[in-house]
Amino acid sequence: MRAVIPYKKENAKSRLSSVMTKDERETFVELMLKDVIQTLTEAGVQNIDILTTDTGDVANDIGVRVIEDRADLNPALNSYLKGLNEPVLIIMADLPLVRSEHIQQITSSPSDVVIVPGKGGGTNMLFIRQPEGFHVKYYGSSFRNHCRIVNDLSMSMNVYDSFLASTDIDEPQDLIEVMLHGQGLSREYIRQRFRAEVGNGRVQLSTID
Amino acid sequence: MRAVIPYKKENAKSRLSSVMTKDERETFVELMLKDVIQTLTEAGVQNIDILTTDTGDVANDIGVRVIEDRADLNPALNSYLKGLNEPVLIIMADLPLVRSEHIQQITSSPSDVVIVPGKGGGTNMLFIRQPEGFHVKYYGSSFRNHCRIVNDLSMSMNVYDSFLASTDIDEPQDLIEVMLHGQGLSREYIRQRFRAEVGNGRVQLSTID
Repeated sequence: MRAVIPYKKENAKSRLSSVMTKDERETFVELMLKDVIQTLTEAGVQNIDILTTDTGDVANDIGVRVIEDRADLNPALNSYLKGLNEPVLIIMADLPLVRSEHIQQITSSPSDVVIVPGKGGGTNMLFIRQPEGFHVKYYGSSFRNHCRIVNDLSMSMNVYDSFLASTDIDEPQDLIEVMLHGQGLSREYIRQRFRAEVGNGRVQLSTID
Repeated sequence: MRAVIPYKKENAKSRLSSVMTKDERETFVELMLKDVIQTLTEAGVQNIDILTTDTGDVANDIGVRVIEDRADLNPALNSYLKGLNEPVLIIMADLPLVRSEHIQQITSSPSDVVIVPGKGGGTNMLFIRQPEGFHVKYYGSSFRNHCRIVNDLSMSMNVYDSFLASTDIDEPQDLIEVMLHGQGLSREYIRQRFRAEVGNGRVQLSTID
């Protein structure tokens, strides 16, 4: 099996711009990527590909294969899948809470497809046993899209239920989850920059001056 | 074992007021409560208590024991726990995505305490094998509070990892999860009132006119 991580660094995570500068966001996505690679490696995944629109976005010392495709996410992933004749895990780069146990459980599922929903209708991970003939449709309500695609192909599906794996980091309120439940480089980065503000509702983060 | 559901209907879920009137919010919290009771019942939990500041808040046909305590959540729960000499599951009323399998897994854990984190540092469920000597501390960063309390008591703890169980419904963007991953009365209520708006980010809900 292989894992593929779609990745874009340039001006990434614009919805975090109210709390992080462009440079900080670019540093942070790189740290999240490194955490995801570390998790995959700990889970025993040996073949890891980064799929990026610009090879220059990826640090030289990243230690995994980097594939450049200037197309958008969906066409890029779909041409990647076309050439594959082994199981593949598509895992997003903004999942610093994922642990190696999740990866092991997902990739050992007997289902044709395992889907990990993201917050707000997204798809955080997609494990596809036979990628030939499958296509992805990210953005918008991709969870529903992928359920429909699996159904149309008469494949079996497992929706993997994990708070940690479903927490993609897109918006300021997601950063509190990195601080509380994270690990690795991205948690360290957030802990250095923010502190938890406790009120009556959900915990908020404020910048450490 | 028993389950206890803290419950307040009067002007509940004020953070949903931008998308629901007071009446709608009060109806919605009652439907979520009914879904939670249904889930507990399906899981085989026979002793269910609702702990409320006002018995008048609870429908007459609710079918479980209703305990009135006018104190705040923490003192009310702590006096409830004091009298207990059996395992107890404290489960919040705003968890319409929880399924009976979660309840069964949580209550069959060998750990002294099982904690289900909520979004933003909260505690959605707390299963305590020996409530005598335990106390709760909700609001703010209650997940951290409860981890600390368990640690101080030298008890063993399991953090239960589930997207569905960790999704408490407090803010407008949480409603999309009810629509996509929910079941029962509360999903029906949301589907009648909102539709999913698909853009480039997370799916948003808009009102059906």
